[in-house]
Amino acid sequence: MQEQADSGAETPLRIGVAGLGNVGATLVQIIQRDGEELTRKLGRQIVVTAVCARSRSRDRGIDTSELAWFDDPVALAKSDKIDLFVELIGGEDGPALAAVSAALELGRPVVTANKALLARHGVALTRIAENADTQLGFEAAVAGGIPVIKTLREGLGSARVARVYGIMNGTCNYILSRMGTEGISFADCLADAQKLGYAEADPTFDVQGFDTAHKLAILSSLCFGCEIAPDEIFVEGITTISQADIKVADDLGYKIKLLGIAQRNADGIEQRVHPTMVPKASSIAGVDGVMNAVALETDHVAQLLLAGPGAGGPPTASSVLSDILDIARGTHVPPLGVPSEELTPYRQASMRAHEGGYYIRLNVRDVPGAFASIASCMGAAGISLESVIQRPDLRVTEPGLAGTDTRTVVLLTHSTLEQQVRDALAQIEGDGFTAGTPQMIRIEQF
Amino acid sequence: MQEQADSGAETPLRIGVAGLGNVGATLVQIIQRDGEELTRKLGRQIVVTAVCARSRSRDRGIDTSELAWFDDPVALAKSDKIDLFVELIGGEDGPALAAVSAALELGRPVVTANKALLARHGVALTRIAENADTQLGFEAAVAGGIPVIKTLREGLGSARVARVYGIMNGTCNYILSRMGTEGISFADCLADAQKLGYAEADPTFDVQGFDTAHKLAILSSLCFGCEIAPDEIFVEGITTISQADIKVADDLGYKIKLLGIAQRNADGIEQRVHPTMVPKASSIAGVDGVMNAVALETDHVAQLLLAGPGAGGPPTASSVLSDILDIARGTHVPPLGVPSEELTPYRQASMRAHEGGYYIRLNVRDVPGAFASIASCMGAAGISLESVIQRPDLRVTEPGLAGTDTRTVVLLTHSTLEQQVRDALAQIEGDGFTAGTPQMIRIEQF
Repeated sequence: MQEQADSGAETPLRIGVAGLGNVGATLVQIIQRDGEELTRKLGRQIVVTAVCARSRSRDRGIDTSELAWFDDPVALAKSDKIDLFVELIGGEDGPALAAVSAALELGRPVVTANKALLARHGVALTRIAENADTQLGFEAAVAGGIPVIKTLREGLGSARVARVYGIMNGTCNYILSRMGTEGISFADCLADAQKLGYAEADPTFDVQGFDTAHKLAILSSLCFGCEIAPDEIFVEGITTISQADIKVADDLGYKIKLLGIAQRNADGIEQRVHPTMVPKASSIAGVDGVMNAVALETDHVAQLLLAGPGAGGPPTASSVLSDILDIARGTHVPPLGVPSEELTPYRQASMRAHEGGYYIRLNVRDVPGAFASIASCMGAAGISLESVIQRPDLRVTEPGLAGTDTRTVVLLTHSTLEQQVRDALAQIEGDGFTAGTPQMIRIEQF
Repeated sequence: MQEQADSGAETPLRIGVAGLGNVGATLVQIIQRDGEELTRKLGRQIVVTAVCARSRSRDRGIDTSELAWFDDPVALAKSDKIDLFVELIGGEDGPALAAVSAALELGRPVVTANKALLARHGVALTRIAENADTQLGFEAAVAGGIPVIKTLREGLGSARVARVYGIMNGTCNYILSRMGTEGISFADCLADAQKLGYAEADPTFDVQGFDTAHKLAILSSLCFGCEIAPDEIFVEGITTISQADIKVADDLGYKIKLLGIAQRNADGIEQRVHPTMVPKASSIAGVDGVMNAVALETDHVAQLLLAGPGAGGPPTASSVLSDILDIARGTHVPPLGVPSEELTPYRQASMRAHEGGYYIRLNVRDVPGAFASIASCMGAAGISLESVIQRPDLRVTEPGLAGTDTRTVVLLTHSTLEQQVRDALAQIEGDGFTAGTPQMIRIEQF
């Protein structure tokens, strides 16, 4: 230990930053501004010596005159001008993957904020890092400014995680929060989010839940010691959530949140991303707007909640910097919490075996016998109902329903198997007493 | 780095545990039970080899037959049977201090959950640890199961903390939560908390705010790089909080919480512990019962909230274990975040210069001119009022008020200086139009 600290004190740690977008430029700025404070904290100087970005001329509010400039991130990753490579290019393949692999293969530590890269290649990159006895930090890849990776990797002792869940996409949480507070439609909220820069021009990746799934896959690996499996996740987005759903949920004491949830079940790890009805009094329900939050339940700690900004230049750059400082200090932790050879293959639990309460919204045709048919389908599937709600103000209008005479009916089930709910809904749709697509939202009693 | 990891892989890390109460016994149990998993995680075995406690015969649900038994914690701390000393004796002086000092002086790493010891002697112990080039871990000393020390020490990069605040005493939070939900008095809640084991037989240290002050002093040091100054804190407990206060706060959209708050001000660091009215919609307001929470505001992160169990065997033992694992991995971080020689002396900001909103509850005599006199005192002190509330159902009965004919009046001020409020209250009391003691609760708009 002594030897490390001493040798560290003598030589500065030279950082190369690939990608000078918002996060990259903020990182360079912070390191330049706080150099003295960092040296004081660490007993070792940290300097950005080289960068790589597409345009040299763009004004990023930072002084790059003293920095070596690379056009090729792989060349930067391999350059002998740096001791640590920071990847902020983005993208799950291409230059980001090539550059990170190249740096790790040379035994050079890497810090990245790239969740897609981690979700897709995290285990392979971890193996390269371990073989080369170097470090791979990715605190900023999940829930930007919240130290959830450090907590999972270093803070849990031997506690066994039973369940992890969280709000990990600010775009979706912003949209759902505004739908709740202002009573406007999904489409209008999305348009506003795009205007404010909270949603991409093509929002598919966010609103369909894939971004959350990537982050959940990374957390699952750290929580359960399994391989990262971003494609083995049940994913449902928020595009079908209507004002009727928000209003009924509110009346019943719930909020609707897009959650990523992973939990141990009898037959494996259940990983799922979907709109979820959560009790208003739960701590996760209080996380609104672009905020993120991750909750952990372990055998030692009933619930640990970490809430904060999930994105943005300063929070994300700050997380990247905390990884850099750990590496500068010589902290040595397996990137995925356990050595990668100890990771178990991911066994997906079947979503059909999921057990919980369900909210079901149906467009029921206004004909005799409709209600009786629905009730009998639910009964036949073995589902017991907690409540049935039909109110004139809940009428949902869908393009497909134009001209049909329907009433909106909401059913809340007691805890039941997803298979039973799907069977019942198939039967109900087959009977022809409903129109359009039934809405089904899972309920969690946090 | 390589060398360290290799040498670590060969020899087990031998732990000595002094103090086998709930936390100590749970820690021994966890390490015995999870030995294999820990070895898998670390590549190094961790074993408890020796313990020290008063009674050898007491059944603690753990197997101590293979452990060396010490009657004197200092002898255990110095014993060559251990590589790391865990102090769970408690108390700010006496055997805990002697044993921790002895271990550190020998260059032996120490992990402790003892907040009183840290608050009183943390800087001195840190100096001993640094001089001997060894480690001092105390994650469990503040907010038991919440990784707040690790986050402050390692997770913030170079972010400057502007404010830290939190609910750090489960006893007080339990009492205030129950007063809110069940409408019963402080005394009755305290009695229940004692029955349930949430409060000590002598609850003074908790309900008067001193326990929170100890923890706040430790957090302040980590947040602001200043020395630990547990006596330089403005402290007010919760014993005067009445149902009237809880009810009016509720009507106005607030909850009352005992908070520890430290923030940078123009003339130093303001550290204070007092009952605080916080907006119901704030995340800290949602932390109820025995739960703890710490919120951080930095120049990079608007708010980071960490919420979880503040006490209890498994959460606290789990935090102790995470410190042990960091030490086993060779993690090397200054105990107080920066080297102790860099700590600045603590400069207490005057509480009289505190600026904020105030809730003031008065028992006003039912005589002509009383109200006008109060209003004119407030005006003369330069205080502008946000609201004045007088309702028959808010009548507070205090022993001292028996026989007097008073009405309860509540005033809410706009942001003002504490000095002005104190001046006005002194004037009001002097005028003889009120009876009993005025209640004053600070308001924070989180």
